[in-house]
Amino acid sequence: MAYIELNNELPGIRGLMAYRPETEKPLNALAEVLLRDDNNSLSRGERELIGTYVSYLNDCFFCQNVHGALAGHYLGCDIDEVDAIKKDFSSANVSPKMKALLNIAAKVQKGGKYVTAEDIDRARAADATDKEIHDTVLIAAAFCMFNRYVDGLGTWAPQDRQFYVNRAPQRAEEGYQSSIYK
Amino acid sequence: MAYIELNNELPGIRGLMAYRPETEKPLNALAEVLLRDDNNSLSRGERELIGTYVSYLNDCFFCQNVHGALAGHYLGCDIDEVDAIKKDFSSANVSPKMKALLNIAAKVQKGGKYVTAEDIDRARAADATDKEIHDTVLIAAAFCMFNRYVDGLGTWAPQDRQFYVNRAPQRAEEGYQSSIYK
Repeated sequence: MAYIELNNELPGIRGLMAYRPETEKPLNALAEVLLRDDNNSLSRGERELIGTYVSYLNDCFFCQNVHGALAGHYLGCDIDEVDAIKKDFSSANVSPKMKALLNIAAKVQKGGKYVTAEDIDRARAADATDKEIHDTVLIAAAFCMFNRYVDGLGTWAPQDRQFYVNRAPQRAEEGYQSSIYK
Repeated sequence: MAYIELNNELPGIRGLMAYRPETEKPLNALAEVLLRDDNNSLSRGERELIGTYVSYLNDCFFCQNVHGALAGHYLGCDIDEVDAIKKDFSSANVSPKMKALLNIAAKVQKGGKYVTAEDIDRARAADATDKEIHDTVLIAAAFCMFNRYVDGLGTWAPQDRQFYVNRAPQRAEEGYQSSIYK
């Protein structure tokens, strides 16, 4: 159970969003434009993977399973393949560009000042654009917020990981801005 | 200079927001409702102080000066008094409730799982409401995002701290949603 009385039984961030709809709106609007907007050269699967990896580094069970299932849905990976990327992306089957962006995301998770000019140069050398680098940093930073929000208020989460996999296709179809109502 | 070509000379998060207006909108909408909405039993000064303290813990020069100047403006404190709260809030001239909420904010800055039931009990014993606890956690989490965004992309910031103090009254009047245009 969450640390505060949410007056609902929704898991993870969904319970918090139903509790405080005034802050739900900009939070879901941010997730929608960062993770789903079609005007982006990073695929939805790649963007979900960045969020999944940061959630893994922050040890947020709810977020890493929600977004890991979405990443797997978009990328055509099963849960074991997503787990393998989380555990060691450098030897996983992802592009050199994604490896360079996941390296930046890991630095952001530790703190903004951990990102170095060399990290940026490595991403550019792997053909990442400035906008892709910008979005990687902001996605990683946003998940440092979402993860802290979910765990800092002690929310509950379904423990069966298949639950998240089963829900992913519907979540992918509906998007974030309607997520708390379903 | 920032790690990416922003095509503007605005400092800190303002340069990033002008570069990517699609993400600026929800980020400023979040700041507006969390930090300025009148329907809140925490004052604007108290909410800015939470953001300032987290930005200090994250060592983000731009954010701790922008929001420290705003906190000082609202609370009627000078820069030295705000600095004293940042350095040791437990012996500073703030209410027992704010001390309990700043304690929660410090835990969130480390990570969501650092917040304990005892931290929440202490805040409740100091008359914090559930909504105040919720907003404290989300403000602290949001500044963990803003700070990482600002420093992870290597933005520049004016080094004269008086610059931020001088701008605070105008920023307080205009709010966040028009901040990048001024």
